[in-house]
Amino acid sequence: MTTPSPSTIKTLVFDVFGTVVDWRSGVIRDGAGLAAAKGLSIDWPAFADAWRAGYQPAMQRARSGEIAWTHIDGLHRAILDTLLPRFGLESLAEAERVALNRAWHRLDPWPDVVAGLVRLKRRFTISTLSNGNLSLLVDMAKHGGLPWDCVLSAELFRHYKPDPEVYLGAAQLLDVAPAELLMVAAHPSDLAAAAQCGLRTAYVPRPLEHGPGGFRAAPAEQRFDFVAQDFGDLAAQLGA
Amino acid sequence: MTTPSPSTIKTLVFDVFGTVVDWRSGVIRDGAGLAAAKGLSIDWPAFADAWRAGYQPAMQRARSGEIAWTHIDGLHRAILDTLLPRFGLESLAEAERVALNRAWHRLDPWPDVVAGLVRLKRRFTISTLSNGNLSLLVDMAKHGGLPWDCVLSAELFRHYKPDPEVYLGAAQLLDVAPAELLMVAAHPSDLAAAAQCGLRTAYVPRPLEHGPGGFRAAPAEQRFDFVAQDFGDLAAQLGA
Repeated sequence: MTTPSPSTIKTLVFDVFGTVVDWRSGVIRDGAGLAAAKGLSIDWPAFADAWRAGYQPAMQRARSGEIAWTHIDGLHRAILDTLLPRFGLESLAEAERVALNRAWHRLDPWPDVVAGLVRLKRRFTISTLSNGNLSLLVDMAKHGGLPWDCVLSAELFRHYKPDPEVYLGAAQLLDVAPAELLMVAAHPSDLAAAAQCGLRTAYVPRPLEHGPGGFRAAPAEQRFDFVAQDFGDLAAQLGA
Repeated sequence: MTTPSPSTIKTLVFDVFGTVVDWRSGVIRDGAGLAAAKGLSIDWPAFADAWRAGYQPAMQRARSGEIAWTHIDGLHRAILDTLLPRFGLESLAEAERVALNRAWHRLDPWPDVVAGLVRLKRRFTISTLSNGNLSLLVDMAKHGGLPWDCVLSAELFRHYKPDPEVYLGAAQLLDVAPAELLMVAAHPSDLAAAAQCGLRTAYVPRPLEHGPGGFRAAPAEQRFDFVAQDFGDLAAQLGA
């Protein structure tokens, strides 16, 4: 493998849930706040993991056409409604469900993210490329101070990653060749699909995404153009 | 007319060419730079006006289906190619045409814009809603330091303003009701179409958009929710 020169890369697109923000801690925090207000005791780490575990199957149903195309807020809400009885929360009122579902709009970035993005933005165009819907990503950016040049979502293409329409659609909208576009993600499967479309890849593992002990390393045989410890390291490798 | 309370407004979307940036001075500046480098003498104000004058008819051909949907970079280029012989510039090489066409990516904001947007962004979500293509708007934001929360373009909807698909599509992507969305523009026709879709309207006249003496006031009978002298005045009126 030859590492591509940073000078051939024009634009960076970022996976968001897990790569940019710590969804698990954010859901646990908001859930615990709700439970404390209602005097309930819930296993929020288990709740967060179950909520996230419902996400890939729900997206797959939307990708396959089994259900009509639905954005992530809608998928999150459908999963939430099935989870609440399992956790003794079936009495939550509609307004409480709406508020809890928006926990995904209020997730905090990992500690290195804002400073890393500020550096990267000086040299490159930086954008989200997330399965999260656009309004969620905009709310999250305002919440966390994420300095995106632009917010791209799978919602714009009505396809979810890893469908090629998302990666190639982003290249087209950003007016760059796939090889000029660097996909940054903590998930090898996302990067493999991006590479299939001709994008460059940067793997930034997030060992704590699934909580302590939840990390699985990338397959040994998978190659990435860049592997970085965090966004500061990525900026350094890219000369930003 | 009752002025709506700013508290009912969640998100602001901005027309860009003329409202946010001074396209005429920018095209004149880049054209003059090119001409000086080549030792040519061209009437760049007339060139800029002719280029812009070709824009509405070109969009109309795309809106009507007379030509396939084409983004603004493509429409600008087609107009440019017809203009060059009229101005004695038919010898421009392909690379020079490409570079000149990108003058629209490098337009400067009006002097009040950045400070006004910074204020407005503290209270509201702020986005473009322009007929310019997405990559053009992203380049322009980086060039001018425009602090958008998100960049929305007619390109995402494959419809040009004033088609309702653009205004209603923006409300849907931003997850707000039309009445929670404020369209900011220097052009009464844009605001009339937005109001037809249920959006709120803010008229910010830009007397110098078409150069000295080129200003035509809005029709006396047209009403707007807000009328502001510039973006700072708009921020003050909206409590931002």
